[in-house]
Amino acid sequence: MHNTDALMQLALDLAHGAIGLSEPNPRVGCVLLSRDGRIIGRGHTQQAGGPHAEVMALRDAAANGESVEGATAFVTLEPCSHHGRTPPCCDALVAARVGQVVMAIEDPNPLVAGQGAARLRAAGIEVTSGPLGEASRELNIGFFSRMERQRPWVRMKAAVSLDGRTALPNGVSQWITGEAARADGHAWRKRAGALLTGVGTVLDDNPRLDVRLVDTAKQPLRVIVDSRLETPASSRILAPPGQVLLYCAQPDAQRRTALETAGADIAVNSNDHGKVDLPAMLADLSRRGVNELHVEAGHKLNGSFVRERLVDEFLIYLAPKLIGIGRELAAFGPLQSLDESIELQFRSIEPVGQDLRILARPLA
Amino acid sequence: MHNTDALMQLALDLAHGAIGLSEPNPRVGCVLLSRDGRIIGRGHTQQAGGPHAEVMALRDAAANGESVEGATAFVTLEPCSHHGRTPPCCDALVAARVGQVVMAIEDPNPLVAGQGAARLRAAGIEVTSGPLGEASRELNIGFFSRMERQRPWVRMKAAVSLDGRTALPNGVSQWITGEAARADGHAWRKRAGALLTGVGTVLDDNPRLDVRLVDTAKQPLRVIVDSRLETPASSRILAPPGQVLLYCAQPDAQRRTALETAGADIAVNSNDHGKVDLPAMLADLSRRGVNELHVEAGHKLNGSFVRERLVDEFLIYLAPKLIGIGRELAAFGPLQSLDESIELQFRSIEPVGQDLRILARPLA
Repeated sequence: MHNTDALMQLALDLAHGAIGLSEPNPRVGCVLLSRDGRIIGRGHTQQAGGPHAEVMALRDAAANGESVEGATAFVTLEPCSHHGRTPPCCDALVAARVGQVVMAIEDPNPLVAGQGAARLRAAGIEVTSGPLGEASRELNIGFFSRMERQRPWVRMKAAVSLDGRTALPNGVSQWITGEAARADGHAWRKRAGALLTGVGTVLDDNPRLDVRLVDTAKQPLRVIVDSRLETPASSRILAPPGQVLLYCAQPDAQRRTALETAGADIAVNSNDHGKVDLPAMLADLSRRGVNELHVEAGHKLNGSFVRERLVDEFLIYLAPKLIGIGRELAAFGPLQSLDESIELQFRSIEPVGQDLRILARPLA
Repeated sequence: MHNTDALMQLALDLAHGAIGLSEPNPRVGCVLLSRDGRIIGRGHTQQAGGPHAEVMALRDAAANGESVEGATAFVTLEPCSHHGRTPPCCDALVAARVGQVVMAIEDPNPLVAGQGAARLRAAGIEVTSGPLGEASRELNIGFFSRMERQRPWVRMKAAVSLDGRTALPNGVSQWITGEAARADGHAWRKRAGALLTGVGTVLDDNPRLDVRLVDTAKQPLRVIVDSRLETPASSRILAPPGQVLLYCAQPDAQRRTALETAGADIAVNSNDHGKVDLPAMLADLSRRGVNELHVEAGHKLNGSFVRERLVDEFLIYLAPKLIGIGRELAAFGPLQSLDESIELQFRSIEPVGQDLRILARPLA
């Protein structure tokens, strides 16, 4: 009836339910299969501090009046073995006397990293590595990035015309792409632990930079790169529910007070050019628990991110129009040779409304 | 056994054999089906002055020792009724005593335009309009453009980075896309009656602008827009076999002589700005029998074509790389409002090697 691949796929489908919910925790799904081959429990990670996928699935089985003794748990990530805000999932699985655990991939968290599996085995539970490890990693690409590289997965989103323009020379950029692409963009915003823009975009477009075209359980952190704290305290970005964090290099006390009074947090760091040090900022965001960082900025800040090779993925909405002279996607260069180009690989190309959505990643 | 759609598709497949061969004549295929339902003859249009599809199919049947009396001819374009460089195909079909003609679409040539069908009917042959009319029109989009609008179908080809750059600021553009895309680009060159570039590209890249990465029976006309006749007589573009035509606005007698000595033809026309009048040039190229005009030019000439809304189709090879500051696909504008954008529709998106090929047409 059931095979391992299909059951792990079901667990992975459940894990998607944790998008926009579980941050900074990973998106994990769990399916419990009874000894006689019936699915008796399902679950995914809840909000931080809430139950993880395994506990949700065990509770689901209990609510269904099912015994999990000797059952097999299909989990998309190695069960945790440490006390975080919740007790270790390993202990819950052991206590419930499941017979076997199939996990898609090892937890990259150095506090877990194989110890979850070891703990289960020590309790007599058979543990195997199952399929869909790569898919589980992709779903948690930001979590893996934070654990393995101590920085978020940086996804740069831009809406561009077929001739690569993100705005007219006068700054007008609303709207290059259509409604479907804008809604799709909000679904990607929802995935992110933080949405980042620059003060230039705040001044030009006065965006809210929140998730509103799709349903979400919570708003991501909003981040502004603003070296001289020029964000007006009346900016719309300060208004929606949720936290706002400004990175500045040269904090003016009066502006700082005004922004803090408006509810924003201020972080100070500076590179040699008196600008915000972007790698240091990424390390700080990682410490703050940001897995995926969604960058929606203008040509200058985008140019800095690209020049410093800090972008892990480009999410480009390509509109079927030509704009001619206008603003670049990322104002870096000028290069002297095409060998200096940022080489990418297309990962997926999908029509979204009348536009195209292109995902591309830098070649290693 | 056979159905009309499948037989017409076979005729259309044959018609593709006329690409790079039949210009300025349309690409036509013909299949002859015997009264007892066997395919007894096949053919497509040959070089100008050579036999058309119907005559080739009749000859094929004769060579096969088959009688075509009472047969059905599936033709992708209405058989011609006028004496051009060859006698009318209608007469050949009547003389061969075929019983029925199924044609995909009416010939837009005002010398034919329904008269072919009328002539066949007058001879007692049943004539019906078959399927795949739109596909036949697409295959002959340049011929239809020339007949209906008295100008070629203008296809602008460009190789651009994901951020819309066709060259570095220093003019370097070789190569933005990969080998597969360049070979594919030559297949599109082969389709064209003429390949057009500007003197800027001649001076920057010194291209041959010929068809060499795919086999072809003949080279398209090469056209240079060169208002002041600045093309060096030693340019590579003058070297390959085939004809070269320069459009200039201000012919200098000495340069003209040098270029004519090098084998080029010169046409003079000027707009109010002392530049080549592009619409007048297109009308002239149409009179010269150019069905599809393939434009591979730099940002300035491309900008003029786009600004004057002379482009019927964009053939864009999108490379997975970022270049940053650089040259535009088409330097028009700056626009004041996004409402002034050139609105397109994506027609097809295909991976070609590591690049993407995008075909887009302006919305009417």
